[in-house]
Amino acid sequence: MQKIDGSQLISEITLDDLQKAVGGSISFCACVHKLRKMSGFSFVILRTGRYILQSVYSKDKCTGDFNSLCEGAYIKITGDVKEEKRANHGYEITLSSFEILSKPAEEYPLHVSSKKLGCSIETSMAHRSVALRHPEQRAVFKIAEGVVSAFREFMLNNNFTEIHSPKIVAAGAEGGANIFKLKYFDKDAYLAQSPQFYKQTCVAFFDRVFEIAPVYRAEKHNSTRHLNEYIGLDFEIGFINDMHDVMAMETAMLKYVVEYLPKHYSDELELLGATLPVINEIPSVTFFEALDILGKSHNQFDLDPTDEVKLCEYAKENYDSEFIFVEKFPGLKRPFYAMDSADDPKLAESFDLLFRGLEITTGGQRIHDYNELLEKMKRYHMEEGDLGAYTDIFKYGMPPHGGLGIGLERVVMKMLGLANIREASLFPRDIHHLDP
Amino acid sequence: MQKIDGSQLISEITLDDLQKAVGGSISFCACVHKLRKMSGFSFVILRTGRYILQSVYSKDKCTGDFNSLCEGAYIKITGDVKEEKRANHGYEITLSSFEILSKPAEEYPLHVSSKKLGCSIETSMAHRSVALRHPEQRAVFKIAEGVVSAFREFMLNNNFTEIHSPKIVAAGAEGGANIFKLKYFDKDAYLAQSPQFYKQTCVAFFDRVFEIAPVYRAEKHNSTRHLNEYIGLDFEIGFINDMHDVMAMETAMLKYVVEYLPKHYSDELELLGATLPVINEIPSVTFFEALDILGKSHNQFDLDPTDEVKLCEYAKENYDSEFIFVEKFPGLKRPFYAMDSADDPKLAESFDLLFRGLEITTGGQRIHDYNELLEKMKRYHMEEGDLGAYTDIFKYGMPPHGGLGIGLERVVMKMLGLANIREASLFPRDIHHLDP
Repeated sequence: MQKIDGSQLISEITLDDLQKAVGGSISFCACVHKLRKMSGFSFVILRTGRYILQSVYSKDKCTGDFNSLCEGAYIKITGDVKEEKRANHGYEITLSSFEILSKPAEEYPLHVSSKKLGCSIETSMAHRSVALRHPEQRAVFKIAEGVVSAFREFMLNNNFTEIHSPKIVAAGAEGGANIFKLKYFDKDAYLAQSPQFYKQTCVAFFDRVFEIAPVYRAEKHNSTRHLNEYIGLDFEIGFINDMHDVMAMETAMLKYVVEYLPKHYSDELELLGATLPVINEIPSVTFFEALDILGKSHNQFDLDPTDEVKLCEYAKENYDSEFIFVEKFPGLKRPFYAMDSADDPKLAESFDLLFRGLEITTGGQRIHDYNELLEKMKRYHMEEGDLGAYTDIFKYGMPPHGGLGIGLERVVMKMLGLANIREASLFPRDIHHLDP
Repeated sequence: MQKIDGSQLISEITLDDLQKAVGGSISFCACVHKLRKMSGFSFVILRTGRYILQSVYSKDKCTGDFNSLCEGAYIKITGDVKEEKRANHGYEITLSSFEILSKPAEEYPLHVSSKKLGCSIETSMAHRSVALRHPEQRAVFKIAEGVVSAFREFMLNNNFTEIHSPKIVAAGAEGGANIFKLKYFDKDAYLAQSPQFYKQTCVAFFDRVFEIAPVYRAEKHNSTRHLNEYIGLDFEIGFINDMHDVMAMETAMLKYVVEYLPKHYSDELELLGATLPVINEIPSVTFFEALDILGKSHNQFDLDPTDEVKLCEYAKENYDSEFIFVEKFPGLKRPFYAMDSADDPKLAESFDLLFRGLEITTGGQRIHDYNELLEKMKRYHMEEGDLGAYTDIFKYGMPPHGGLGIGLERVVMKMLGLANIREASLFPRDIHHLDP
């Protein structure tokens, strides 16, 4: 019998720890990122969970055998810390001893310790567990962590409740054929295309909810902007006056994110050479105004990727904004649950948000009246039972409400200026990739 | 063209807002939770996103028509706030006006405004969107939010990186037949039984990671303790000395959770009559010690539910702990990636944590040496390629590491003393329920 009291925890080295140890000794674990022999001494570049640190080996000061080290080994080091402006993060450690904890069986097949990984996305995906060891590659996912943390913190500060809804569902929320099917015991089931129905259900009793969870789209696109499994940042708000309340909430949230990142992830932003957008006001044009701006006739029902790029250029030039909302889309291309516009029932109270040439959000006001929903479903050739218990929510009362879904990887991709959305997913799922 | 600056956000009423408004007027939106006619006036009990508040209607003070109100309507009210000790949360609002925003088409089929919902779990699931409107029912999910928030905060404070790994996978991590299959374009795929392989991959470059995400088990159990889709709280730590470092981290995390909840969710804890566990030291017994305690012979390889209950009784009586670790399970019943014990290779460096009679965690130290892993896989009749790129992680080097997975709904169920795990899931997935 032993007793575990949790008072002694193994720790991860931070820059604060190094600062405190200046002039004294420190011990920590790290991976040997790079070895560089100089005359009379060698640099042992260490990769911790977040930092690349410079340590120096010389035979007279360190008890360990330099030749036992190799790139990719995990070691525990002890050494003296001094400030050194030329070193990464401003510290250098003079090694006094090290212990090898584990060694790789083979050398990395990629240039993990080079300044740039410098391989194609295809090669990076073929050696994913190695590619992600590159400092720039992993830094992308610290930024993703930051976007998620800021989103969550903003939501909680604004009295949203965090929910977890099932991803195995009886019916798709977004319709169409882009849905993964599976067998759920003796029933046919699907992977959720969005948490739409569940978010709405929860508005009935939590007023405002958010969810951070995977979303599935069985689209056969093989593009730089589509993933078949991605992380959705979703929220839904009750008691809105109209969809502009949803757009205002998103604008405030995005401002929060771009203020949060430099506070907590300045090293990663610098490493990646990222320029975050400045958000003051975000212009919003109607779908038909957008077509006018593009010089296109009013006979199309959606925007294509080129339109998105051009509208962002327009917003940048005319309003100094890297974001632009497009609102009041033709209802035909929007889901059945979207509220029709009062001024023109052919239009939906629905919007997209474009950022640096890419749609990152779809949202809008939803129908909350039971009879209005049944009528709309009829127009969409849907019967009440088709969506299981969904219409029950409205039968027993719902406040006016709206919400949106944001694609995390798209936001990260555009914030960091990545060329391919796969670079913003740890283990991307596309039409060709299911492993790792 | 409009401009959205996010400076005006619609707000959700809080108790702070009420306190500030005492002696003055307030306006907010809410659901009519209950109407109670008295002589000369009526109580209009309001349900906000988090609170049940008492308001008073009388014809001479309020411009609205009382008969237009009904339970389940969503309204915007204006009224004067005063402190009133006998009222819920200590405030009462004298209505001066109200506006009806929406009305239900039918009356609730359940007793949403009664002190107890008082229906079977089966009925609650048949009317899920109504049952969750009951204050006690929804409060469970505020506590779940609190457990998740505390877990995440603890992890981030301890320099863990939050990751998101795919749930559509090429191979199951836990083996066995309990796995959901699906068609991923032209390939066979599965729903992840755990983020195991991905957590391990990320330890190679982040040292310590955590994930909060759905986990899938196609178990045909129809019990009070199994769900087929649940939320896993997972973490994985590099550079551990042995599995006790993982257990210490979990103990410290659980202490953090039970300190966090009363600070942020005291109303819900009171409403639910919850008694949180006190955590000082958690006793840990080996699997064979556990069998001795149970008076059983050493010829079984796992614990059954009755064993779990008895071991918790033992821990409570002998160590005043509602938790007990059981460690060093027979390897036979543990996954191939578990590290063998140095003292007895038939045992695995693997543990469970039991809480109030139920296993809430499985964890342990993992194999990190490439050749050791290949040998172990051979013993499990697995070939290197069977798990796709998994073994690559080790080929290119991994530190000693370990981790665990916690079932969120099980923790919440036991913290709150719920009889059935379905009560701790917003929209439970079991062998019979796929909708809502």
